Amino acid sequence: MVQAVNNHPISGVYLGTTQAGIKKPGKTDIVVMKFVEGSLTAGTFTLNQFCAAPVTLAKRYLSTHAPRALLINSGNANAGTGKQGLLDAEATCAWVAQELGCAVEEVLPFSTGVIGQNLPLAKFEKGIPDAVANLTVSGWDNAARGIMTTDLVPKQVSKQIEIDGHLVTMTGIAKGSGMIHPNMATMLGFAATDAKINQACLQQALSDAVKVSFNRITVDGDTSTNDACTLTATQQVNMPMIESVDSAAYQLFSGAVTEMMLELAQMIVRDGEGATKFVTVEVNEGATAEECLKVANTIALSPLVKTALFASDPNWGRILAAVGRAGVENLDIDALEIYLGDVCIVRDGGRAAEYTEEAGQAVMNETDIKIRVDLKRGYVTETVWTTDFSYDYVKINAEYRS
Amino acid sequence: MVQAVNNHPISGVYLGTTQAGIKKPGKTDIVVMKFVEGSLTAGTFTLNQFCAAPVTLAKRYLSTHAPRALLINSGNANAGTGKQGLLDAEATCAWVAQELGCAVEEVLPFSTGVIGQNLPLAKFEKGIPDAVANLTVSGWDNAARGIMTTDLVPKQVSKQIEIDGHLVTMTGIAKGSGMIHPNMATMLGFAATDAKINQACLQQALSDAVKVSFNRITVDGDTSTNDACTLTATQQVNMPMIESVDSAAYQLFSGAVTEMMLELAQMIVRDGEGATKFVTVEVNEGATAEECLKVANTIALSPLVKTALFASDPNWGRILAAVGRAGVENLDIDALEIYLGDVCIVRDGGRAAEYTEEAGQAVMNETDIKIRVDLKRGYVTETVWTTDFSYDYVKINAEYRS
Repeated sequence: MVQAVNNHPISGVYLGTTQAGIKKPGKTDIVVMKFVEGSLTAGTFTLNQFCAAPVTLAKRYLSTHAPRALLINSGNANAGTGKQGLLDAEATCAWVAQELGCAVEEVLPFSTGVIGQNLPLAKFEKGIPDAVANLTVSGWDNAARGIMTTDLVPKQVSKQIEIDGHLVTMTGIAKGSGMIHPNMATMLGFAATDAKINQACLQQALSDAVKVSFNRITVDGDTSTNDACTLTATQQVNMPMIESVDSAAYQLFSGAVTEMMLELAQMIVRDGEGATKFVTVEVNEGATAEECLKVANTIALSPLVKTALFASDPNWGRILAAVGRAGVENLDIDALEIYLGDVCIVRDGGRAAEYTEEAGQAVMNETDIKIRVDLKRGYVTETVWTTDFSYDYVKINAEYRS
Repeated sequence: MVQAVNNHPISGVYLGTTQAGIKKPGKTDIVVMKFVEGSLTAGTFTLNQFCAAPVTLAKRYLSTHAPRALLINSGNANAGTGKQGLLDAEATCAWVAQELGCAVEEVLPFSTGVIGQNLPLAKFEKGIPDAVANLTVSGWDNAARGIMTTDLVPKQVSKQIEIDGHLVTMTGIAKGSGMIHPNMATMLGFAATDAKINQACLQQALSDAVKVSFNRITVDGDTSTNDACTLTATQQVNMPMIESVDSAAYQLFSGAVTEMMLELAQMIVRDGEGATKFVTVEVNEGATAEECLKVANTIALSPLVKTALFASDPNWGRILAAVGRAGVENLDIDALEIYLGDVCIVRDGGRAAEYTEEAGQAVMNETDIKIRVDLKRGYVTETVWTTDFSYDYVKINAEYRS
């Protein structure tokens, strides 16, 4: 696998952006992604039942049509806006359809930003033609910036792989922050590839990738109303169609998609406002994935653990207590082991005999920290990534809107 | 019901305390509660599987013996101490048993404080006789102070009720903080009554009371390794024995126990270090208690909601999003309603038409705030109490041990 620049153009994908004034002046806030005819798109969406109007509409359109374009705006989430929100989202899609000469159902809408305010339609009506006017295959960087809200850096990843002698390229952009964002920590990801692949395999590759990437970065348990991720295949490479998930070609493709999504997801964690640590929580030797995730997420979401991480305090009792309350039945407390980095902190039901505060402190002083739990009851491993809990976390989220 | 002073003596209960040097000098840290022969005790304990040694021992002893005494220490939790912790807890019980002339299994141990350090046994050996030497029926206030760790105020509640013409008294003390404590937010509650009641009814009254009091104050989701609550009935009132949960006498008794525990639990929330708000989350018209609690706890534990409460920011979108991700299947988003105080913030799937920022702000400016969700799908109500998330929350938990 060749890792090249982070925003290779994708044959058949054109990106246009504009500053429509939805965010502050001088900020790009509308992105249009246009796909060549014959492109297929897979999507995953938030499970929040109060999902935003654009999510409802995108899911509906995607179930019956192959998208020809995505319309993404930042600065306004169009969430909590009831029936008007749906009408507004539909109107914005219609303007894109009119510009591109396609059906309204072939345009998927995505929004991120403030909740509970109606879309400023006039700004869309004026901005969409501007964005369409500058559609270009080299627009990925502008697009990555255009979907940012309080992100500090744009997030782009590009991969090139060889499948049966054919070069396949994929590029993705994402937005979202490792800590909670004022705008609901919305995570958006948009990726495209020139691979020739059918809809079922494309959806499977995306779903599998999201499961171990975006769905494994857990910062506060607050699932956004607007989370969405898409993967479009433009079918432009002259290669045999990937049409079975059992094929070697699919495995190569799927692996690269997962790597790309994982890199994007970890960028989101690292970009967290207020985040001072990048924390990997790995749970090994579980009987099921479910119980591994229960333990990992309980540790990763514990405010006690997160404040200790912020303070670089090897307060292992808080990790032990999180494991104990994770809701896994019949844990063998005397068998399991807990590590901070390579340092064993818990064994035989209590503090490991060889543990020293100095050894624990050395691990906690690092910026990248791994917490590892070996449950000693099976063969399953699951990993999640998270951040610490800082003063800035409270500050950012308390001072929003004030 | 007559509400009198907050620490009526209970006939048959004697309390002794001492400063053994487990905490800083000048702080009471050992409490002995002695019960007259014939007393019955009910208990509830943490579900954390890494439960502390004293919890393991107390549950074991209580399953076979009627306690004659409780031994409570603050300053050291004897948690995460493995097999040595059990031996140490047993040794401290043996000293109490020796002083009182009872069996070691008739003494229940409770500890709260720092995790992962062995008990300083010499201090117990010297301190326990001192505490026993000053056993007195009027020792409740000293005991309430002796079980404190970082609590700002002692917590005591006393109730007197009349059952079939007999005056029944009950007094309880508790410790714990509304926000996370360095020592794992341990909540301890110890109550006693002079009522004549059998073991089954006593346990039922305690379990029911804890379920709607201590188990409904949710501050961070971190269940301590040491949480415990006991209720002892000394049988000293010359009244007909309460021996059926269907009796009117039981209903009176049980109601008073619940009120006492609820007052103690709410004192714990209000005493939270860093807490600036007292928040009631009430979920009405649910189909089941389980789904009401899911919604209530998701709101109460959301860092986004809690930081908004700290900032007095009527950021209703965060509450809406918490309801949406609570994991209740097939919520009727268009039917449910959400209120801040008496102000409707969400109706018809979005912001209520009549909602104004000024109205929401007025509610959020209060210290006591109620968030109410009407699910419109049944007849069940559940309520939880919580606090906000402040700078001091992070400060207290990050700076512990530094």
